[in-house]
Amino acid sequence: MTTRLILDVDTGTDDAVAIFAAACHPELELLGVTAVNGNVALKYTIENTLRVLDHIGSDVPAFAGADRPIVRPDMPIPRHILNGDDPQFQVNELDFAPSTTPARPESAVRFLIDSFMADGGDDIVLVATGPLTNLALALGAEPRLAGRIPRLVIMGGARGWGNVTAVAEFNFWVDPEAAEAVLSAGIRDVLILPLDATHSAQLGLEDCDAFDAVGTPAATGSAALIRHRIQHYPDDPAAVRATAPVHDALCIAALVHPEVLTEVVDGTVHVETAGERTLGEMVLDTRPWRDEPTNARVALRADAQIFSRFLTDAFRS
Amino acid sequence: MTTRLILDVDTGTDDAVAIFAAACHPELELLGVTAVNGNVALKYTIENTLRVLDHIGSDVPAFAGADRPIVRPDMPIPRHILNGDDPQFQVNELDFAPSTTPARPESAVRFLIDSFMADGGDDIVLVATGPLTNLALALGAEPRLAGRIPRLVIMGGARGWGNVTAVAEFNFWVDPEAAEAVLSAGIRDVLILPLDATHSAQLGLEDCDAFDAVGTPAATGSAALIRHRIQHYPDDPAAVRATAPVHDALCIAALVHPEVLTEVVDGTVHVETAGERTLGEMVLDTRPWRDEPTNARVALRADAQIFSRFLTDAFRS
Amino acid sequence: MTTRLILDVDTGTDDAVAIFAAACHPELELLGVTAVNGNVALKYTIENTLRVLDHIGSDVPAFAGADRPIVRPDMPIPRHILNGDDPQFQVNELDFAPSTTPARPESAVRFLIDSFMADGGDDIVLVATGPLTNLALALGAEPRLAGRIPRLVIMGGARGWGNVTAVAEFNFWVDPEAAEAVLSAGIRDVLILPLDATHSAQLGLEDCDAFDAVGTPAATGSAALIRHRIQHYPDDPAAVRATAPVHDALCIAALVHPEVLTEVVDGTVHVETAGERTLGEMVLDTRPWRDEPTNARVALRADAQIFSRFLTDAFRS
Amino acid sequence: MTTRLILDVDTGTDDAVAIFAAACHPELELLGVTAVNGNVALKYTIENTLRVLDHIGSDVPAFAGADRPIVRPDMPIPRHILNGDDPQFQVNELDFAPSTTPARPESAVRFLIDSFMADGGDDIVLVATGPLTNLALALGAEPRLAGRIPRLVIMGGARGWGNVTAVAEFNFWVDPEAAEAVLSAGIRDVLILPLDATHSAQLGLEDCDAFDAVGTPAATGSAALIRHRIQHYPDDPAAVRATAPVHDALCIAALVHPEVLTEVVDGTVHVETAGERTLGEMVLDTRPWRDEPTNARVALRADAQIFSRFLTDAFRS
Repeated sequence: MTTRLILDVDTGTDDAVAIFAAACHPELELLGVTAVNGNVALKYTIENTLRVLDHIGSDVPAFAGADRPIVRPDMPIPRHILNGDDPQFQVNELDFAPSTTPARPESAVRFLIDSFMADGGDDIVLVATGPLTNLALALGAEPRLAGRIPRLVIMGGARGWGNVTAVAEFNFWVDPEAAEAVLSAGIRDVLILPLDATHSAQLGLEDCDAFDAVGTPAATGSAALIRHRIQHYPDDPAAVRATAPVHDALCIAALVHPEVLTEVVDGTVHVETAGERTLGEMVLDTRPWRDEPTNARVALRADAQIFSRFLTDAFRS
Repeated sequence: MTTRLILDVDTGTDDAVAIFAAACHPELELLGVTAVNGNVALKYTIENTLRVLDHIGSDVPAFAGADRPIVRPDMPIPRHILNGDDPQFQVNELDFAPSTTPARPESAVRFLIDSFMADGGDDIVLVATGPLTNLALALGAEPRLAGRIPRLVIMGGARGWGNVTAVAEFNFWVDPEAAEAVLSAGIRDVLILPLDATHSAQLGLEDCDAFDAVGTPAATGSAALIRHRIQHYPDDPAAVRATAPVHDALCIAALVHPEVLTEVVDGTVHVETAGERTLGEMVLDTRPWRDEPTNARVALRADAQIFSRFLTDAFRS
Repeated sequence: MTTRLILDVDTGTDDAVAIFAAACHPELELLGVTAVNGNVALKYTIENTLRVLDHIGSDVPAFAGADRPIVRPDMPIPRHILNGDDPQFQVNELDFAPSTTPARPESAVRFLIDSFMADGGDDIVLVATGPLTNLALALGAEPRLAGRIPRLVIMGGARGWGNVTAVAEFNFWVDPEAAEAVLSAGIRDVLILPLDATHSAQLGLEDCDAFDAVGTPAATGSAALIRHRIQHYPDDPAAVRATAPVHDALCIAALVHPEVLTEVVDGTVHVETAGERTLGEMVLDTRPWRDEPTNARVALRADAQIFSRFLTDAFRS
Repeated sequence: MTTRLILDVDTGTDDAVAIFAAACHPELELLGVTAVNGNVALKYTIENTLRVLDHIGSDVPAFAGADRPIVRPDMPIPRHILNGDDPQFQVNELDFAPSTTPARPESAVRFLIDSFMADGGDDIVLVATGPLTNLALALGAEPRLAGRIPRLVIMGGARGWGNVTAVAEFNFWVDPEAAEAVLSAGIRDVLILPLDATHSAQLGLEDCDAFDAVGTPAATGSAALIRHRIQHYPDDPAAVRATAPVHDALCIAALVHPEVLTEVVDGTVHVETAGERTLGEMVLDTRPWRDEPTNARVALRADAQIFSRFLTDAFRS
């Protein structure tokens, strides 16, 4: 039995690996990919998405969505996130052949609404690995949508630390209002994979070698992307690195192998939309005496071996 | 030559008068009415909208939109806004016959997008007299929409005072993120009618008598609604009142008779989304040395006589 | 009968006129002047204060206080506030002879506390015309102080507009936390003169001529300072100006001639400490149905003629 | 060689143990104790402080300071912090004999300033285990003070979790502006012990037995207080507890035995003063590429055995 899913992405390198895995794994049926403004501008995230799908000959439809956060024009992205020490870290366009299949004409938001509101659409799993703008817009525009989504998996947030700011992770920081809107929408099963999980299950050069050995376009494409990540991940410049987190792809692994997440807590999760130094922070409340109901499960740790094996399985198909 | 328009409302008493005027005036062609959560819950604002249209035998289509603000569930509305001293001030359902025509099945957001994106849709004027949730969602979901709206008239805000809080007016306060999103979307001609304008052009009992003399359903219906407003408007309980503002209808008057607005300034307008005591405040910058470009015209004063005469003309048709 | 007072200042040009008036007027007894970081750095505000006192041969003691806002290091002051079009608008040092009398060794905060806590100190009026840092620190350090201050007159704030930002006046904006602390301290008689009052009672070149005719050092010194203000006040560069507000001195006039304030309202006043676009705004609530108790009177309009005549009287002594 | 220190406290049970240890340990010379509003109102924190000093026959002087946070009146303290399941958890007055020695007449803020500004005062270590109100006021009132404090040890904050809110610890949350003011004041050696450290070095019933065996008033008094903490610490009601953190006393241990802190990181630390859900959060930035300079060392882990042995040593004296 396969899981039907829609992926909402801001395709950079790790979203690309997530798309490869979602499109290829035999237990997953990828219904569509929706692109959103994020790592790079919308025109690049949609183009990158199309390139990734073309690279593996996939005919999964792709849709362009929001080109800015809900409330305001984009905030300037800190330099270290864009490129670390290397101006090539965050390429605007992934190094695959330019896309030949165009994006679908309908907007991402309309595709999301129509997919879940259609007869039988309420068994589709939604995986969101970019800023949550598209999803927040869809939930707002169609009040019944939240009740139609059986399961939402989100890559975002971090507990007590961050990559863009001291305490904010990129996806939640880019559009904190969208993230808060999604978390307060009443979707019944929400699983969040913050940096705590993704950084605890990093992939290394030997994993890349294993993917190369598989030899499919998805496998070798992913190997190249992950090698690039290992080389350019922003971090202590003094450190010698042999691994990098591949955040977004871990969400796909968790669909097929929930046990890849080795520590998961129930909590009340919000995203700060007003702080002077905490804008975009994931505020996770796990105190037993908290007043608000639990609205998400949050993965705090994951297993790199299960993750790597899942990707190998996916790419082999 | 007529002006084609769409009205976005949270129908209470003054939205009702706006709908009557927009539907009846010979120089206006009302293409549709979209309802949003606001004065009362969405189920009431759409029902009230349908009742108002039925009352005058109009076949203008109505659409239900967002049932909560974009980012969070509704904030509790202060008691004095809901009912003043009189628990009947803000009825859930206007005192017209229950609606017999249903709302259209498409969502308000989809209707807004499709109307403006259609061939020739870029001549439609949009008038928004409730919280700006529907419009913000539409602008986010369809990035090209802002460029298709030739003119937007908004009832909202106040300069340096407020009705819900010390410095916030209801519509902007209910969904400050939506208001800020709309104001930053790049729509080229935005006209705001804050409380400063609407309170300076109040209607009185003699205006109601004049409407009654017109005798059409729109006229007598409006007279009854405005009498109700005069009786129940929240204010100093010691004051004897003979007038009340009819906020939303002033926007319609301004479409046909721009001279009803006797003082209009250019400014940079934002809505505060993060203040401890200023949430939802309209922040109007008219300083000559301000850095940001002008994004709206703001009416600070209006003429009650022109307003009243416009309504009489509209109701006569 | 004379009024004993202490002046808390960040001496620029209008504080200087206030000091002249307070030191010279026969019905006022100036006990001390405390300087705070504000228009310019503390080292300049204390030096300017000393120069102003020396200029009129006054032996009133001066004290240096806080050199930064309570919570954070200074925010950068917008260019237009510093100098308008003219780099000389805000000189660091007033154009009087360098001071020969040093500041007293005790800190301004200690002087404030000791003055009001001393036997009989509870009849001293406090006039604050700079950021409220010194006063907030004193109120915090000595919990009984608020109950010892019979009357506080503050120059600060604006209703619905501003000079530093769209809605914030300089004094409140520089240290919003201090302003909020002072307003919530429970001082029983607080009178605020915002920009609304000071801009409605501007002084002109003919007033300067009248001061020159008086001929005392305070009079000719003030005339020179006010002429400088008229010439350099930041405003529409296209405007021809013949007047300027002399904010701080209006507080002194209000001590002797309360009728100089022609419109005064009771209100609940707070200062926004958290807004994204409203930081430092005076939030004045005059709604009859507000929940919080009145904590200040706020002057919204003043009379330039009474103001000018008061200054002439003061300078004549 | 002994370390001279001043303790700034809001005496509840763990401050009491800190005072016992600081007053008794032979390598420490306690010069004074300053009380601040916090766990309970100032009148109780000063009375409790005096009782604790009387209990061990100490003649160390105590001083009352601020009776509210700097900017606003106290926020309501969540119920679970006050009493957990047990209404007696947070007693207003510690269960020692009422004080017989009065507090000194000078204010805490004046004592702090005078102590450090006195000749030779710049070798005094300051340990602050309550809200940082007194210290922030002193630093503001005397700009030279920051440069006179050689070392400041603070109990406060938590990394990514909290006790009062999801992400805020009590001391920083009660007066976030004071905490931010202190952290931005430029004190050259600041060591913070957040909940991460204090919760990792909890004391148990067997530690209490060991203190009882020592038999001095400080030892048995501490044993009673810690037993009370173990019994009433707010936590999962289902949990069986045999230990409790004794936050404040860990600061004293760290003065004598720095090795009690087993993990200490350099970081840029701020306290959020504006967040909707993050007010009072310690924002710790340890990213190698951060822009701001390091302003504190933060202990993330501590050793309970070293802690317990230190207390035994102290109480034995």
